[in-house]
Amino acid sequence: MNIPKTSTLAVPFQRIVGLRNLGGRVYGIDRWLVGTFLHAIGDPALCVTLWDGKQIGGETTISTVGMVIHDRAALLRLLTNSLLHFGDDYSNGRIEIEGGLVPFMETVYQAMDRLPKFRQVSDPAAYRRNQPRLNSLSGSQRNIHHHYDIGNDFYQLWLDADMLYTCAYFPDPSASLEDAQIAKMELICRKLRLQPGQTVVDAGCGWGALARYMARRYGVNVRAYNISHEQIAYARQRARAEGLERQVEYIEDDYRSITGTCDAFVSVGMLEHVGPDHYHELGLVIDRSLKDDGIGLIHTIGQNCSRPMSPWFLKRMFPGSYPPTIKEMMTLFEPGEFTVLDVENLRLHYAKTCEHWLERFERNLNRIREMFDEVFIRAWRLYLSGCIANFNIGALQLFQVVFSRAANNRLPWTRAHMTAPNGDP
Amino acid sequence: MNIPKTSTLAVPFQRIVGLRNLGGRVYGIDRWLVGTFLHAIGDPALCVTLWDGKQIGGETTISTVGMVIHDRAALLRLLTNSLLHFGDDYSNGRIEIEGGLVPFMETVYQAMDRLPKFRQVSDPAAYRRNQPRLNSLSGSQRNIHHHYDIGNDFYQLWLDADMLYTCAYFPDPSASLEDAQIAKMELICRKLRLQPGQTVVDAGCGWGALARYMARRYGVNVRAYNISHEQIAYARQRARAEGLERQVEYIEDDYRSITGTCDAFVSVGMLEHVGPDHYHELGLVIDRSLKDDGIGLIHTIGQNCSRPMSPWFLKRMFPGSYPPTIKEMMTLFEPGEFTVLDVENLRLHYAKTCEHWLERFERNLNRIREMFDEVFIRAWRLYLSGCIANFNIGALQLFQVVFSRAANNRLPWTRAHMTAPNGDP
Repeated sequence: MNIPKTSTLAVPFQRIVGLRNLGGRVYGIDRWLVGTFLHAIGDPALCVTLWDGKQIGGETTISTVGMVIHDRAALLRLLTNSLLHFGDDYSNGRIEIEGGLVPFMETVYQAMDRLPKFRQVSDPAAYRRNQPRLNSLSGSQRNIHHHYDIGNDFYQLWLDADMLYTCAYFPDPSASLEDAQIAKMELICRKLRLQPGQTVVDAGCGWGALARYMARRYGVNVRAYNISHEQIAYARQRARAEGLERQVEYIEDDYRSITGTCDAFVSVGMLEHVGPDHYHELGLVIDRSLKDDGIGLIHTIGQNCSRPMSPWFLKRMFPGSYPPTIKEMMTLFEPGEFTVLDVENLRLHYAKTCEHWLERFERNLNRIREMFDEVFIRAWRLYLSGCIANFNIGALQLFQVVFSRAANNRLPWTRAHMTAPNGDP
Repeated sequence: MNIPKTSTLAVPFQRIVGLRNLGGRVYGIDRWLVGTFLHAIGDPALCVTLWDGKQIGGETTISTVGMVIHDRAALLRLLTNSLLHFGDDYSNGRIEIEGGLVPFMETVYQAMDRLPKFRQVSDPAAYRRNQPRLNSLSGSQRNIHHHYDIGNDFYQLWLDADMLYTCAYFPDPSASLEDAQIAKMELICRKLRLQPGQTVVDAGCGWGALARYMARRYGVNVRAYNISHEQIAYARQRARAEGLERQVEYIEDDYRSITGTCDAFVSVGMLEHVGPDHYHELGLVIDRSLKDDGIGLIHTIGQNCSRPMSPWFLKRMFPGSYPPTIKEMMTLFEPGEFTVLDVENLRLHYAKTCEHWLERFERNLNRIREMFDEVFIRAWRLYLSGCIANFNIGALQLFQVVFSRAANNRLPWTRAHMTAPNGDP
């Protein structure tokens, strides 16, 4: 496994260090620039401290959060493509946050949310500028490689023992992350009503935990697809170690290459990477795979109305990603006339999942520092904190959608079968 | 209450009786016309018996259902706007069905469903032709009056004791209609997490049972809106009889006139009458009514992909009605950035509900005959049977959608609170 000591995640500090000399004395124009920036992002209640220690904004608003801008170049950069440059300059250490990253981002995102649509920073043009890679077969490969192939050892430091990198299900908010991930897998199996001997297709299987859980607990056979080479290698090794290689086949291939039929079609945390332009293709794949009395489940990050992700998030974290609205998701289901049986929104569960991840990330900082540089660490801290903030304020959702074919009447009468108390079947 | 002895529901027999003389001997052209008609509706496996007793279709296909066409005029009419004329001529007795109305319609609808879109009889042009009344304030008034104001005594003969004219919830398929309607109201109250003293808006309250149940069982105050004069009169009378008039206010007005704020916004079986062009208006009403930590619930007939209702259904039964897809429903929620928390599909519950209604309708035929003529009775038999068929084959759905504002974090952690075993809180 090749773990880069220095990441290319954010703009290297050296490239822009020349500009730093501009910072020094603070002039009236600097204060004006700060005001312009704050106004552009909806006048959030935050205090901005400049490189000479002067504070702006703290006097008039009751702010519990603030940002420190270490030089004029960073301030200037905030005025164009604010979210991208904020992310990069936070990662580079030219911007610091006071009062906690999560509350800071909640404050900023809420202010931006209140802006009229035409003034919103995260505009479609910025989205297009920062999404050069489409989710074609090769584009998806590069996009997925960018995030998921940076080293299993790294992910092991802050994910649960089964390496689930998707929203957990907390039967109780005090549940451990391990228990909550098991409860999530159990909930999915129950929603799919798995029976021994059935065939399952798992599209976008991550490190393969769900496929192994299904095989072990429900006696089904799973064909699990993923285009992340590192994840597939890990998944296969664990299936061998657990004696499940006859029940679970991990296939290093794109969802568009799925063949054969199945009793259950499941996809957990893949739709975010498919892209709305390709939902109809995924719909066709499901249509040719799912048996007449089969059940499907799509688990995805979503949103209430269509907005692109932040340019920083798209460029540095998840190129090509997009969380759909329910309306957009219907492109998957309508052409094949699938019936939506059930939608559950697990938004607050994802905020809590990310809190667990961030907490473990911070706890293992010393070991992560042996793998990556400070820019990488700050970028990932920003990313995980940003997710918590977005789920907390309702800018992101988590939709778990159960569906069947229209004519399938072999359906349970109520949802009682879905109740999965704390992971016990 | 004014109960018409002779309805204007279907084309009066007398108007077309002159054409009947054309029926007599069956010619080769008649057989050709039957073939053309069957092909136009997707070649369903059914046997057509003509006025001289000759059968067509029964030889080659294994048909368990059939239709008897009593004269050539009825056959000719089937060739243009088939669904409208089938409905009218079944109502008038010029067409009879063999093998049961429900299986017959399941067979026909399934065949029509398999037709390519461009050949489908229920085309948008027919939809427009047969939907002259838009759901404006006055249009809605006329549309609602057409169906709901034909006499409470009539509905009492086949609805449950509480007069709920919407999908029931059968905790078990063997539950009685009465129990299932109570379980439905209980399920809704639980989904809304009603607390004593809260304020509820009920948009489109029917005969008011849900509002009274909420007030009685959950101690809330309800403002319940409806534009059906007959229903409001009945609802008020029952609220007085049950001593609930201080808690429940029945308002004879349109949903667009809803004022004030509420902790819960509920609408059961009204969206079908709102029309997609007006969803944004209903969304605005909800946006101005629902408190920040309020919960909303919309219960509506829906469908998997956008298709107009049959012209006969639109003209004779529910002018202006339309069952939305989930995608179309999102027009309600997206502008106000509401969060969809939960969707439950109760399709098979509605098939069962309609079975109960039809069974009670047939059981009370003698009393219904004192109120209405045979054309009316046959039309309603067709309508209720058609609903059963459409829910059975998955052409219609029943979506129950729970929603909140995006920033509302005062949400239950799981769906455990929704479990309503058999109506007991």
